[in-house]
Amino acid sequence: MSAPPRPVNLALLGCGTVGGGVIRLLHENSAYLATRVGAPLAVRRVLVRDLDKDRVPECDRSLLTTNPDDVLNDPEIDLVVEVMGGEQPAFDYLRRAIDAKKGVVTANKMLLATRGPELLGLAVDRGVDLAFEASVGGGIPIVRTLREAFTSDWVERLYGIVNGTCNYILSRMREEGLPFDEVLRDAQAKGYAEADPTLDVDGHDAAHKLVVLAMLAFGARVAHDRVPTEGIRGVDAIDHRFAERFGFVVKHLAIGRELGDRVELRVHPALVSQKSVLANVSGVLNAIFVEGRALGPCLLSGRGAGDMPTAVSVVADIVDVARSKLAGSAGRSTRGISIADRPLASLDDIETRYYLRFTVKDEPGVLAHIAGALGQHQVSIEQMVQDGRATDDGLPVSVVMITHRAREAGLRRAMAEIERESWVVAPPRLLRIEEV
Amino acid sequence: MSAPPRPVNLALLGCGTVGGGVIRLLHENSAYLATRVGAPLAVRRVLVRDLDKDRVPECDRSLLTTNPDDVLNDPEIDLVVEVMGGEQPAFDYLRRAIDAKKGVVTANKMLLATRGPELLGLAVDRGVDLAFEASVGGGIPIVRTLREAFTSDWVERLYGIVNGTCNYILSRMREEGLPFDEVLRDAQAKGYAEADPTLDVDGHDAAHKLVVLAMLAFGARVAHDRVPTEGIRGVDAIDHRFAERFGFVVKHLAIGRELGDRVELRVHPALVSQKSVLANVSGVLNAIFVEGRALGPCLLSGRGAGDMPTAVSVVADIVDVARSKLAGSAGRSTRGISIADRPLASLDDIETRYYLRFTVKDEPGVLAHIAGALGQHQVSIEQMVQDGRATDDGLPVSVVMITHRAREAGLRRAMAEIERESWVVAPPRLLRIEEV
Repeated sequence: MSAPPRPVNLALLGCGTVGGGVIRLLHENSAYLATRVGAPLAVRRVLVRDLDKDRVPECDRSLLTTNPDDVLNDPEIDLVVEVMGGEQPAFDYLRRAIDAKKGVVTANKMLLATRGPELLGLAVDRGVDLAFEASVGGGIPIVRTLREAFTSDWVERLYGIVNGTCNYILSRMREEGLPFDEVLRDAQAKGYAEADPTLDVDGHDAAHKLVVLAMLAFGARVAHDRVPTEGIRGVDAIDHRFAERFGFVVKHLAIGRELGDRVELRVHPALVSQKSVLANVSGVLNAIFVEGRALGPCLLSGRGAGDMPTAVSVVADIVDVARSKLAGSAGRSTRGISIADRPLASLDDIETRYYLRFTVKDEPGVLAHIAGALGQHQVSIEQMVQDGRATDDGLPVSVVMITHRAREAGLRRAMAEIERESWVVAPPRLLRIEEV
Repeated sequence: MSAPPRPVNLALLGCGTVGGGVIRLLHENSAYLATRVGAPLAVRRVLVRDLDKDRVPECDRSLLTTNPDDVLNDPEIDLVVEVMGGEQPAFDYLRRAIDAKKGVVTANKMLLATRGPELLGLAVDRGVDLAFEASVGGGIPIVRTLREAFTSDWVERLYGIVNGTCNYILSRMREEGLPFDEVLRDAQAKGYAEADPTLDVDGHDAAHKLVVLAMLAFGARVAHDRVPTEGIRGVDAIDHRFAERFGFVVKHLAIGRELGDRVELRVHPALVSQKSVLANVSGVLNAIFVEGRALGPCLLSGRGAGDMPTAVSVVADIVDVARSKLAGSAGRSTRGISIADRPLASLDDIETRYYLRFTVKDEPGVLAHIAGALGQHQVSIEQMVQDGRATDDGLPVSVVMITHRAREAGLRRAMAEIERESWVVAPPRLLRIEEV
């Protein structure tokens, strides 16, 4: 018999709900995890802001500290698990951990979106593991899949439902015919939306996640504020009804496409077919659809947030990094990864089908005018419906069109012309139709 | 500068379409794969049956051999990639490879289904990697997900659409209202079904895959011929129409559930809600839905077969095993895995909702009789429809019922009683309704 192996020593930065979940899972599954890793996993330090706050019962209070040096300067700590969130001081702590050749696991989406390529570069340089499964898609193993399953393939396009709040609101608007404001208020009451919902409903959270996915899928370094981003405030209940009528569902999507020298990234609501695998991803569920050149389509769906799904992903990363550390093969997960600046494609060059909704006075010649303006810019109409009301009541009517494939630049010019007409009562609505 | 690392030496057993795809991917991505692995991947030997057959142009013919000893007795070969298929001689070759402490990657579903636990046991004993992502779900990273993402979680239930032939046939029957035989013939003409379709349409292929999934998800060793298995020959076009009417879709499912001491495994067609994430998995696509205690629901979908998706999965495994070999951490992927015999739950104990279709003479009292027989066995009816035809034409009618949750033992007794009645014209049809 050889001597029992030295444990792999962990420290947590942060001990909120996710951190508590991690401690609980490590505790409950300790024997099994030790056999899978080849050595016990031992939590040695937990960095917190408040020593007196309540913690999960599995958390040994004697491990708590408010001094980051107790973690970062301790040569006995093999692996740092960052579950504190936010860009700073998380970035500085992880930079120091990487410098000290500690393995790093993080669940921090904001950090990855803003400093991901930088952090990954440091990890590659130092030959250290940096695992971040939980930073995007919570309990969905998308990082693992893009890093490992796609090693010998190229991602051609990627469509994500990555914001649970948007998906919950759109799902309920669709199912119950309710207006945005009402569903948002209810989502806030239920805890599915923040008191300040801007980050979610205006699409910024999805843009953060898209930037992380683009780094993995396309090796692209892109600043999240350069991603064309649109939220779901402009989608009305009536759009859900019309979409339904044409066989579509409205989803908030994060989209990435490989275009040779450039990469196309965008976040916005879009119509997808009711037969799409994304159509039934509803409520707070997330999903990421990836299409590989050789692999073809691949969909992953699950809980995009939540303490326990996130904690499961964090522990999977801990096991992975601990194994590498133990085998003396640290840096395994980051080896050979390179991230580079990639120019973004312009929205003008998108070519797809569109859903257009016009609110117009019910006057003769209006339809001919719209069709004419679209036609002048090479946009042709595939289907059209007008709100089925009695005419001559003087009220505005909704006209909805599905176009054939068209170039966005031309479409936008046509829409701008139409919008200037006197019979246009409200700004026209435009939603892209995505084939996924 | 240190000396360039020694390559990781591979040998292929078999060089058919998947093997050719693997050679092509290794060739096309060689520089990138070398940086990800940390050393070049070099194919040193390819075992084939026929030296003269055409191979992909990337295959160096000087590497071909018909003698397995050239691979298995060569100490320079680090990693054996088995893409020959079939139980024997594949099992003997891989046993010898494991004995010789070579890493093993296999795409062989039949081998895993019949000898998986045995092979895995050998690999664990010898501290050798055994990777088999491609053996179930082709291009879907389900093995990786169950092995790694679920390390700190417990799978509670699992639902798979794992046979592309069945899914293609059911999808077309549903979409086009065609009978089974006609779609099968067309599927055979298109190459989506074998000339002898028994293995697929009678559910045996799905049972093979379920046994592999159960090994990963539940640590269960179960002989595939002990899994209650039913194919899709009994599903008529009319069942698709009635299912649609009640808001369901018919899918062929491989189901596994953790029941404490026992494990429930079964393969059969079933009704799932049109809103289910499985409902839109159509055509030859496969999907596996897994529910973890902490992780919650997780769906993976993609191409379950096909040369290139399968080859991508094989190469991902090669990279994984090569990294471990190189780092001196061989056996990483199998470490701590244990598989044990698990008793199977009886179908009698299933409790779910059911779809029942009776073909009966259009006589007074028939409905009351059916309802009475069901009621006597504690089965109550939730919804009922009768074929909307003019009465009194003397032809049999279809009566379809959706039951409330009921225990299968009671339901089967009631069905047996009903079947004996003189007014029953054809055997009743029973389909389980699965909440997924």
